[in-house]
Amino acid sequence: MTDIDTKQAQAPVVPSASLLSPLGLDEVRITGGYWARRQSANSSATLEHIEHWLEREGWLPNFDLAAAGRLPQDRRGREFSDSEIYKYLEALAWEIGRTGNEELDQRFTAIATRVLAAQEPDGYLNTNFGRPGQGERWSDLEWGHELYCAGHLFQAVVARQRTRPDAEDGLYAGALRFADLICDVFGTDGIQSVCGHPEVETALVELGRTAGEPRYIEQARLFVERRGTGVLRDIEWGRSYYQDDVPIREAEVLRGHAVRANYLASGAVDVAVETHDAPLLANLEGQWSRTIARRTYLTGGQGSHHQDEAFGDDFELPSDRAYSETCASIASVQFSWRMLLSRTGRSYADLIERTLHNVVATSPSQDGRAFFYANTLHRRTPGAVADTEAASPRAEASLRAPWFEVSCCPPNVARTFASLDTYLATTDAQGLQLHQFASANIATRLPDGEEIAVEVETRYPDEGTVRVRILKDASRPWTLSLRVPAWAGSARVSVLSDGGASEETSSVEADYATVTRQFAAGDTVELELPFEPRFVRPDPRVDAVRGSVAVERGPIVYALESVDLPEGSDSVDDYTLDDSIEPEFEDGRLFVHLRARRAAEREWPYQVDVDEEVDQLIRVPLVPYCGWAERGPSTMRVWLPLT
Amino acid sequence: MTDIDTKQAQAPVVPSASLLSPLGLDEVRITGGYWARRQSANSSATLEHIEHWLEREGWLPNFDLAAAGRLPQDRRGREFSDSEIYKYLEALAWEIGRTGNEELDQRFTAIATRVLAAQEPDGYLNTNFGRPGQGERWSDLEWGHELYCAGHLFQAVVARQRTRPDAEDGLYAGALRFADLICDVFGTDGIQSVCGHPEVETALVELGRTAGEPRYIEQARLFVERRGTGVLRDIEWGRSYYQDDVPIREAEVLRGHAVRANYLASGAVDVAVETHDAPLLANLEGQWSRTIARRTYLTGGQGSHHQDEAFGDDFELPSDRAYSETCASIASVQFSWRMLLSRTGRSYADLIERTLHNVVATSPSQDGRAFFYANTLHRRTPGAVADTEAASPRAEASLRAPWFEVSCCPPNVARTFASLDTYLATTDAQGLQLHQFASANIATRLPDGEEIAVEVETRYPDEGTVRVRILKDASRPWTLSLRVPAWAGSARVSVLSDGGASEETSSVEADYATVTRQFAAGDTVELELPFEPRFVRPDPRVDAVRGSVAVERGPIVYALESVDLPEGSDSVDDYTLDDSIEPEFEDGRLFVHLRARRAAEREWPYQVDVDEEVDQLIRVPLVPYCGWAERGPSTMRVWLPLT
Repeated sequence: MTDIDTKQAQAPVVPSASLLSPLGLDEVRITGGYWARRQSANSSATLEHIEHWLEREGWLPNFDLAAAGRLPQDRRGREFSDSEIYKYLEALAWEIGRTGNEELDQRFTAIATRVLAAQEPDGYLNTNFGRPGQGERWSDLEWGHELYCAGHLFQAVVARQRTRPDAEDGLYAGALRFADLICDVFGTDGIQSVCGHPEVETALVELGRTAGEPRYIEQARLFVERRGTGVLRDIEWGRSYYQDDVPIREAEVLRGHAVRANYLASGAVDVAVETHDAPLLANLEGQWSRTIARRTYLTGGQGSHHQDEAFGDDFELPSDRAYSETCASIASVQFSWRMLLSRTGRSYADLIERTLHNVVATSPSQDGRAFFYANTLHRRTPGAVADTEAASPRAEASLRAPWFEVSCCPPNVARTFASLDTYLATTDAQGLQLHQFASANIATRLPDGEEIAVEVETRYPDEGTVRVRILKDASRPWTLSLRVPAWAGSARVSVLSDGGASEETSSVEADYATVTRQFAAGDTVELELPFEPRFVRPDPRVDAVRGSVAVERGPIVYALESVDLPEGSDSVDDYTLDDSIEPEFEDGRLFVHLRARRAAEREWPYQVDVDEEVDQLIRVPLVPYCGWAERGPSTMRVWLPLT
Repeated sequence: MTDIDTKQAQAPVVPSASLLSPLGLDEVRITGGYWARRQSANSSATLEHIEHWLEREGWLPNFDLAAAGRLPQDRRGREFSDSEIYKYLEALAWEIGRTGNEELDQRFTAIATRVLAAQEPDGYLNTNFGRPGQGERWSDLEWGHELYCAGHLFQAVVARQRTRPDAEDGLYAGALRFADLICDVFGTDGIQSVCGHPEVETALVELGRTAGEPRYIEQARLFVERRGTGVLRDIEWGRSYYQDDVPIREAEVLRGHAVRANYLASGAVDVAVETHDAPLLANLEGQWSRTIARRTYLTGGQGSHHQDEAFGDDFELPSDRAYSETCASIASVQFSWRMLLSRTGRSYADLIERTLHNVVATSPSQDGRAFFYANTLHRRTPGAVADTEAASPRAEASLRAPWFEVSCCPPNVARTFASLDTYLATTDAQGLQLHQFASANIATRLPDGEEIAVEVETRYPDEGTVRVRILKDASRPWTLSLRVPAWAGSARVSVLSDGGASEETSSVEADYATVTRQFAAGDTVELELPFEPRFVRPDPRVDAVRGSVAVERGPIVYALESVDLPEGSDSVDDYTLDDSIEPEFEDGRLFVHLRARRAAEREWPYQVDVDEEVDQLIRVPLVPYCGWAERGPSTMRVWLPLT
């Protein structure tokens, strides 16, 4: 099914056929600016930080204990802890592919060796099941996460295989043996069920693409189709928690656990693409659209329930209990990216941009050593300084924590940042599409062999100008497409011939600004996006933020943080915003005009008459939401009530 | 400490000294009207319904299994299931006291016999701990609920002892032996910890009052003082979950699990009263006030988090995820009632009224055979019809369920309804105070022996007139006090001499309308409360309901339910309210004026401009919130957004 003679892109998602083709890490490279700084922290601090905690918490040593026959008695960590090692390996693999770092390569091999030592003769690999004193294999599909862990292993070896196909660590072969076993156990005549946490579906498709093994893709299809038929047990939160309430073809919207829902949708896109299942793909497009229109926070975050880490009903989007798990946002990027490759459409790239800048980038601290698990849009109490020496038992906090008892987010961020370059651009027969804006070098070939090389220069997201310089003379006309985000409304596009003045400038209101020509080296296309700060208002059906506005500039959502309030004020809830004065951007900072309010203190908060006194106007800076909580405990809100 | 020579009131709370004295079931009896109907359903349907499910789910048979040596292997139910049997016994005891029903008395004795058969020789009694194959006694104080279960046993025997002191079922003696054991194990030299779920504190005080045993009260004091010092393990939701974060004397507000918080506060009041601890009582008054002003729903419901069934931050009161557990409202009534007895104050009685009418009364269906566990203020989707043949695994639903896997609420409602008469009135040296309004007979003695007998007649809460007829000539002047609820603002009070016309009528704005005179049989005092429906508006700091109003009439909170919308409309979220037209009350129904709205369907719900079209005005009935969901699945909201 997959043409394995063609070298696969060094990228996480490589469909055998799609409208847009992904570029690999050897074709697109972020060279500077905002994302380069975040990648640098990921590379220089986060990776080492993660490995330190994986050792310290015993999750990596569990594999050694397995080999030494000391399980289950000495095992540490939750039932899914194996997966964190695999996500870390995936991060290493992309980072090695991106940078060629040989020290990381040795680390990868060392960990792979420890992992493989725990593999059973028949290919089974999990430190939490199957030994005397442990649950039997596949005995707890609802909560055991065995297939989920396997999925992350497969994604790690796919990354490894695509970036270092000649590596001799043996993990790829081990993973294939495990995948074969899973196909035996869960195939047409096997256990007619699925894993409580989707993830293996997308992983099996990618492994099938890499290995050229249709059996893996067929197994993924079986998993996708089985789910929704009530194969898992009913639980307190309902089968919707693990998307076992409605078959995927009948579902109208993402629901239940937000990470599970997005991973499943990603796997379903992969299956639909490989099996040429247009109706399934069309259904997923509908699910995506309704989810974005009704169940997504301004930041792109998803999941409003703490209890079950789940989507709520349509428009149930409370700010002060926004869960918006980091991993859900990463999973959402994965779903959108797959849709973008297969269906095209600015909306997908818009949501990826919003989510990357306002959730994925929010989770890790600037230094890369602390993380948000949940990403609330409103923090009413400053909370305490996190203990940097202990894993946090809590998903929510006012400050980032170094590690969590459930620590899915840090390695998920790491693997995303290490492969971030691949989300910038795609190609098709006509040319190159630039979806995300960062300073970067791109060098690739179109299907007919036409070579393209460009250099992107921008101070995005601080400024709205994106300059694409052509580095190679074209042998035929091709089209450069630059996304015009929906939030921008329109853009100005200028084309400058090599060394010359502006040849043409136009205002573009289309989803993508396109320039088609037989480019010459030195030609430059410049996109100018309007970067005035703006107030945005919610759909009136979002009860939680009625009568409030938020402030955005470019792709960035801003927040009011209490450390920026006048002396003596520690609660952002004591202020209202005057929207008759537009937000102002000066010297790199954004300001709004607020009035302190003094709500009458009453015995009972609900009265026939409500009075509120307000003070005189003050001018207060906002901070990019992704940068909040870098200055100690504070209160914070994204949505500001109107005076 | 307690004067056991004085016969104790047949009431749940009997302080040895307090500003107001409670009346027993032999002194105050509801005779008709709203609460009589609810009590009748409780008596004729709910009690039998509960026993049926206790047998069916195996929770009652667990005691038989214990006696037969078949635990733990055959045990069914959660770790706290024993407590449901005890709450049911308490309900039976009050019901027997109220009605003298001999068949119920036999049921009580039969169950008591089965319970006692499971008691260990040293007094220990719990079906979930201490046997081979079970956890050791007291080995899981965080989650084991052993002391919690013991507390409910103690409350059951206190109810039994106060209503049938000559009963020969043996349960009282068994409970005393268990209490003695607990004092041995957890005393000054014993285990220096507490139960993860407060409850035993208030129960031990009441048992001490009944038995005249100061040791039990001292043990309660130790439990109250120990908590908050970090004696329990830290958990995902923090030690605030079980109030082990801050010592009770330093706390400023209720926090954490709402049932736990209110039970602890109730026990702390009891301890403070018995140990004459004025500072502790003053602190609890402060905690109560802040909790009511900032952490309580319009209905009186408490607890906004589903995840940990907990209070949120100040003003974190989302409607659409209101948890507002039935048991938390019952626990809140217990806390407020204790404060009312010890400190006096209309606010306590106001909150009790609001909570009884709008949460406690909401939980059971009119027929008494189905219950809400959580009492949300906003339901966005109609949900499914509940399975009446299975215990619901879910706390939230759009329809009441017959039983729950965690079924604390039904027996908690039953014991409250069975003892509800005792919450109507109190006495002090000056006279009689009427706090809650229901048709009732009251016959009691003041401390000096002065006999009082009155008949209360009212159609409350349908109408606002309360008529108190004096049945006995007084030998000295005494004072009749009638609460003027804060929501009323003022009331008209008329005094009519026997057979005569109105002697005087006055408008009263005080918290209580008082009439002092040497009453003669036949004298009548009439209270008229304003019963026009009214809009109420939230404190502007409650983000979740900004720009919305709710409608109340008398003590009743109203709701818009989709079954009352025009044909073809199934979502209450499609309407806004025009508050320029006052609500109208006609023929027993309440109407408001709404406009359907059509929010533009957009790809992304946050935009610079938001338009909303609205339709012409329509007149739609609201229903009392306590009566919603009696007509099949529907959507519902209490807070209505303004047009």
